[in-house]
Amino acid sequence: MLKAPVASQRDVASSEAYALAVDAMGGDRAPDIVLAGLELAADRHPHAKILLIGDETVLKAALPSYPKAARICDIRHAAESISMEMKPTAALRVRGSSMRLAMEAVAAGEAQGVVSAGNSGAMLALAKIIVKALPGISRPAMVAVQPSARGDTIMLDLGANIGCDARNLVEFAIMGEAFAQAELGLPKPTIGLLNVGSEELKGDEKLRQAAEVLRESALGEQFYGFVEGHDITAGTTDIVVTDGFTGNVALKTGEGALKLAFALLKRVFKTNMLTKLGYLLVRPGLERMREWIDPRRYNGAVFVGLNGIVVKSHGGADGESFASAIDVAMDAVTHRLNDKIRARLDQLGMLNNNDQGLETHSETSKEPVS
Amino acid sequence: MLKAPVASQRDVASSEAYALAVDAMGGDRAPDIVLAGLELAADRHPHAKILLIGDETVLKAALPSYPKAARICDIRHAAESISMEMKPTAALRVRGSSMRLAMEAVAAGEAQGVVSAGNSGAMLALAKIIVKALPGISRPAMVAVQPSARGDTIMLDLGANIGCDARNLVEFAIMGEAFAQAELGLPKPTIGLLNVGSEELKGDEKLRQAAEVLRESALGEQFYGFVEGHDITAGTTDIVVTDGFTGNVALKTGEGALKLAFALLKRVFKTNMLTKLGYLLVRPGLERMREWIDPRRYNGAVFVGLNGIVVKSHGGADGESFASAIDVAMDAVTHRLNDKIRARLDQLGMLNNNDQGLETHSETSKEPVS
Repeated sequence: MLKAPVASQRDVASSEAYALAVDAMGGDRAPDIVLAGLELAADRHPHAKILLIGDETVLKAALPSYPKAARICDIRHAAESISMEMKPTAALRVRGSSMRLAMEAVAAGEAQGVVSAGNSGAMLALAKIIVKALPGISRPAMVAVQPSARGDTIMLDLGANIGCDARNLVEFAIMGEAFAQAELGLPKPTIGLLNVGSEELKGDEKLRQAAEVLRESALGEQFYGFVEGHDITAGTTDIVVTDGFTGNVALKTGEGALKLAFALLKRVFKTNMLTKLGYLLVRPGLERMREWIDPRRYNGAVFVGLNGIVVKSHGGADGESFASAIDVAMDAVTHRLNDKIRARLDQLGMLNNNDQGLETHSETSKEPVS
Repeated sequence: MLKAPVASQRDVASSEAYALAVDAMGGDRAPDIVLAGLELAADRHPHAKILLIGDETVLKAALPSYPKAARICDIRHAAESISMEMKPTAALRVRGSSMRLAMEAVAAGEAQGVVSAGNSGAMLALAKIIVKALPGISRPAMVAVQPSARGDTIMLDLGANIGCDARNLVEFAIMGEAFAQAELGLPKPTIGLLNVGSEELKGDEKLRQAAEVLRESALGEQFYGFVEGHDITAGTTDIVVTDGFTGNVALKTGEGALKLAFALLKRVFKTNMLTKLGYLLVRPGLERMREWIDPRRYNGAVFVGLNGIVVKSHGGADGESFASAIDVAMDAVTHRLNDKIRARLDQLGMLNNNDQGLETHSETSKEPVS
């Protein structure tokens, strides 16, 4: 495969551009799990072209062991890498890191997206500075797919932004819609705004304001209203919108509770000979269940709202889960996630990054700011 | 049993005072589940004296069917009751409601605590106005016991306060400690402050400030530091402290995830004849597991930080879960929850409701407010 020509001469959407730039050095067991993941991904995306960025010597030595990956990858040397422990501010100063070069390939139009299993704080900081936010998006967000009783639920933000205002929440809804269309193939996904239960406490001003804007917008038909914590796993809506602090806690609390359920279940099955026999009888179903709710299946957390597709794979991922992060990125590329976001922002008059619509609502609101 | 004399003449801690005032009219199936709950509670707390408040005609007709409850209860008439749908502001205007009279019995020193399965927003509003906050507590909070891999975890606030500052979080830690001592019998419970994962995003200013105060206080040895969502069910700390919005979402997300696990499990067991046989073999253990994580076992959510014990039972509770709310209230009364809170506030110099300690930290903090 020929090395791609200079970035600036290329059209991002061109079929000759790299689909993805992959940070070969990110994650606890890089580059092995990255290469193992690409080997699996090559079967699923045989026509994808991947720009593999990392230590050239290491990669040239390792790649022949992954023949399918070798067929779709071009190697680009990066002299440095960012450790999992490095602070984002320090990571930004490492000019020649594999993660940074991957982001730069996207910014230059060489690749449409980037996948890394590296340090997520560094990744978010680099993405914001190098790939940059889409016009009309003030806060890129972290989004992922989670298991629910009705199939898959999409939640955002999962930690990219601690404090959020009403405008941010509306942007999250727009990005969530595009993500649900691109990743789950839902033409008109429903949207819920995460809130607390008691009527009295329901929502502070930013939540009420965001709800009002969404209800009256072109997304109004898809806007369900407020949802609560239990609605995430119930699958009440296809998309759950919340600030990054709450979203991060909810994501990890849900994962923790499922883990607790399996730990308790294991104890039940180990009680005696009869329960052990019981386990043997249900094992296949249990394993399917465990796989289905396995966070690895939902491994591709995506930073949305950037001028390119940016996918974060778990740091402790294995090859299978890295491949699933590649799948998520490829879906976003193929289904033109960002075009969908742009179109919706345009329709809602939010392309110019101003807060006009929301400020108007704020001024006319009868509710005191709590 | 004799009717208690006039409230103002009585010492709250006197053994002749009512242990609890019970709102007989709160909840979806009142007064039946209340009476069924008291019938069970009478076995467990045969020496407790209960002031049962509600429609006298209804209660006098119903009580004989619950002979054990009848032995420990005195009836007090309340002409009105507060519906589950009523807004707190409207509920405050109902002068003769059973819930209000129960709170007034606590404020007057007739009873040491109140239990109601009624409208929680109304309950919180009435408790703040009538029972009032303990000196040194600026924000009473809602606390409950939750299942974890290492036993029980206590979390607060679960929704009484949406926005919280560092002082509030420190108060929550103090109230959580006293609650863990009174309800779980842990002499030195560990305390975690709920936060998000990524180092970069870790904590806004109020979290960093609360952590600093706790670390340097007499609670320092018990303060674990920051915990994340998955630590709640892992049981990393005995107590998880967070603001009411996040706590409410985490509580309901955890419950929802456990519910999802059971729903999936049910599907697995129903697959075929063999899996159905497997179910029969593990059923006893599964039922114990389900009971253990049943929210009803954790039914007594307590409003802490008030001049009396205030326990909320689930609106849709049955007799067993109402009895468990009575247990929680009796534990708090017997183990002198509020005395423990007072003693710790005094030790930390927080009894006078000023923010001195925290303001000092705020002024000397090097971190920018995020």
